[in-house]
Amino acid sequence: MPEIPDERRERIASDPFCQKLGVELTDLGPGTAATELTVTDDLLNFHGTPHGGAIYSLADAAFAAASNAEGDAALALETNISYFEAVEVGETLTAAAERVHERGRTASYRVAVTDEVGDEIAAFRGRVYLPGE
Amino acid sequence: MPEIPDERRERIASDPFCQKLGVELTDLGPGTAATELTVTDDLLNFHGTPHGGAIYSLADAAFAAASNAEGDAALALETNISYFEAVEVGETLTAAAERVHERGRTASYRVAVTDEVGDEIAAFRGRVYLPGE
Amino acid sequence: MPEIPDERRERIASDPFCQKLGVELTDLGPGTAATELTVTDDLLNFHGTPHGGAIYSLADAAFAAASNAEGDAALALETNISYFEAVEVGETLTAAAERVHERGRTASYRVAVTDEVGDEIAAFRGRVYLPGE
Amino acid sequence: MPEIPDERRERIASDPFCQKLGVELTDLGPGTAATELTVTDDLLNFHGTPHGGAIYSLADAAFAAASNAEGDAALALETNISYFEAVEVGETLTAAAERVHERGRTASYRVAVTDEVGDEIAAFRGRVYLPGE
Repeated sequence: MPEIPDERRERIASDPFCQKLGVELTDLGPGTAATELTVTDDLLNFHGTPHGGAIYSLADAAFAAASNAEGDAALALETNISYFEAVEVGETLTAAAERVHERGRTASYRVAVTDEVGDEIAAFRGRVYLPGE
Repeated sequence: MPEIPDERRERIASDPFCQKLGVELTDLGPGTAATELTVTDDLLNFHGTPHGGAIYSLADAAFAAASNAEGDAALALETNISYFEAVEVGETLTAAAERVHERGRTASYRVAVTDEVGDEIAAFRGRVYLPGE
Repeated sequence: MPEIPDERRERIASDPFCQKLGVELTDLGPGTAATELTVTDDLLNFHGTPHGGAIYSLADAAFAAASNAEGDAALALETNISYFEAVEVGETLTAAAERVHERGRTASYRVAVTDEVGDEIAAFRGRVYLPGE
Repeated sequence: MPEIPDERRERIASDPFCQKLGVELTDLGPGTAATELTVTDDLLNFHGTPHGGAIYSLADAAFAAASNAEGDAALALETNISYFEAVEVGETLTAAAERVHERGRTASYRVAVTDEVGDEIAAFRGRVYLPGE
């Protein structure tokens, strides 16, 4: 991906909250990004399954990376997520974000969260505001 | 809140993901719950503001507590969140969840996330499925 | 409501799509609005219950009225709706919209749809963009 | 599409609300459906652009058709829509719904609304509950 300068990719990849959770940026392009997270015991809820907040954070990290990849600060306005399947401790999840639409000062992104065999375990959509300079 | 047995409250309060993030359960009743989180540096994103995933997780924790307070396992199906205001490091945020509707095997909850002066900084709504026994 | 000029209220009330469906504007203030709709046979779906599109349109009309009440054109970016209860033919439904937040170029509205006895049958939230001049 | 009996397709296609609006069912398969709507003057809002309720209803009709195509009654729980572009009077819009996930008693559908040149003007996602017998 020659379009995204190394410096910007490093800044996005060094997100403190992502580092705390173990969310890694694995891909970044203009309007696209992918993140990964391996489910560890400290990401579980009181049912013993991955916390919705952990799954959401993985998807949100891909959304944030994709929407800020081209250098303009993008602020999240609205997001929604559908949860489909529970996953096991030890599994590595992937979130893939792509831009669906951009016009004027807003843009919309779709994120698919998949498990190791490629099944979609959650679907996310988010809208950002681009305040400009 | 005499309706919620101590044992259940303790189980909900000892959620591993919430402990990792610093989310505390401060109130629990039938269909209601409140959680708190103080914004620390490790909850920030690469812009230096609280990560959407941290704000969402605070709201989602209140939603999960409220929807599981009465003892039936509740599984999150769909959630959405609107982000209103950025907050500063050091601020303590509160999420208050209340049940809006319950019928048959689903229930809906509304969560307001407020800052220290009571301004709503995010609004969340979530739907759970109650599989029953 | 002295704040909303008659001319503007009349323009909002004469919305062609609302007239087609039978949606009436019953209240309009700064950031608030109410609409009403009586469920007729032509608003049913193939199950014989009110079409989701009819319930949504009632809520959306209140949202549009509230967000345009003060004279700045507001464009809907994102909306979501939770359906709670089916209603019968002949019932009159009310949608009440209120502004939850406004800052800069966006604003958020919450709409409750209630039946004749005041039970909430659907909950809606919407975000608008205010392009300004 | 041999899988969907004619009788069921006719029942879905004869939805009263869709007929009122001019929404036509153009395709129906297991978990998929397409609908069409030509924007007429009576579908406009007070800004003179197609009412959000009309766009939503087109998408919701595809969602309802797809989720009921296989014969089990499906009840809408939650939907959300992102609006991208305004469209002109006279344009014919298409909504294409596909099932993203189904398990147990719920299923999730994604709907893309496109204009005549194939640009996505709105994105919709909906979750249904399948009460079974």
